[in-house]
Amino acid sequence: MNTRPLSLTDDSPVERGDAARNRKRLLDAATQLVDEHGVDAVTMEAVATKAGVGKGTVFRRFGSRAGLMLALLDHSERELQHAFLFGPPPLGPGADPIERLVAFGRARIALVDVQGELLRAAESAGVRFSAPAHRVSLIHVQTLLREAGTVGDLPVLAQALLAPLDATLVLHQWRELGYPLERLADAWADLAQRMTRPAHR
Amino acid sequence: MNTRPLSLTDDSPVERGDAARNRKRLLDAATQLVDEHGVDAVTMEAVATKAGVGKGTVFRRFGSRAGLMLALLDHSERELQHAFLFGPPPLGPGADPIERLVAFGRARIALVDVQGELLRAAESAGVRFSAPAHRVSLIHVQTLLREAGTVGDLPVLAQALLAPLDATLVLHQWRELGYPLERLADAWADLAQRMTRPAHR
Repeated sequence: MNTRPLSLTDDSPVERGDAARNRKRLLDAATQLVDEHGVDAVTMEAVATKAGVGKGTVFRRFGSRAGLMLALLDHSERELQHAFLFGPPPLGPGADPIERLVAFGRARIALVDVQGELLRAAESAGVRFSAPAHRVSLIHVQTLLREAGTVGDLPVLAQALLAPLDATLVLHQWRELGYPLERLADAWADLAQRMTRPAHR
Repeated sequence: MNTRPLSLTDDSPVERGDAARNRKRLLDAATQLVDEHGVDAVTMEAVATKAGVGKGTVFRRFGSRAGLMLALLDHSERELQHAFLFGPPPLGPGADPIERLVAFGRARIALVDVQGELLRAAESAGVRFSAPAHRVSLIHVQTLLREAGTVGDLPVLAQALLAPLDATLVLHQWRELGYPLERLADAWADLAQRMTRPAHR
């Protein structure tokens, strides 16, 4: 398993010093705007004002609003990856694999709450099953299923367990069907437990 | 439960006599073309030639190639619905609910084999979770889970069980990852059985 957090886009150049600091400053400003006013409030101009830089700096860094959205999504994916690969239990190493699996599902569903629109935008742009970030989640789920002693076709079962966490589906259940995210997280935890339960026939 | 097969588009006018026969004749011709040469071979002209009518008749009936694709997809969805609602067991009534569930998953995955491109085209056109056809499948899976004595949040568990059957995901697993459809069907059957298995802790 490759344990270095992987980018959604896999095209990030190595950044050092000022460039990396500026990028982080702009992404932090954009994240604050999302938290305070929602995704629609994130314009290039609003990010520039919030970060105290010129609008041209934001355009030079991200190219377009779509580029900024993808960078924001990437940022939150890396944070989630970092948390499940290296962070404290129950999401990170050290907890029981089933507890880790349940914590992973909850964290992914919570990510939809915070960054739903970004995810939906990135998914409809075709960044979906084959994105490096998706592969990392897949390997993680497969590893936890194995550690929990699950017997079966683990690569396909891991994909089946990830499928209900698809942001487009979660957003549909939440916004259109009105199911609270907590309810979706509980049902997913139930599913994960059924998946890892030994057979008694 | 509404047992009348539902259309994907919900806008089919009542058709009688000649009109219905002509429509069926054109759809049968298009289905044959898909089976023999794949979806790309289905042009308005090829359908007209195959059915022995003028090209104008095909345009008047379906409006555009996209309209024809949606009608074809609708046609195969209705056939599947008819099979699981009224057909012979194990897909239709009379078999054990778990056997019916397994048969449903296999039938849906097999549909991707035959009409994958149509499904992918319709899904990317936004005909997805909220399509009437999807709702019928959802109610069907939920009913079978209940009949099998599954305890839990059945509406959400039914959606979780349907999620891995999403045509876009199945096509990705089949074409890009190279998993045989039989393997996907076996893993889904395993999942359905775990879902309906009573808890032993």
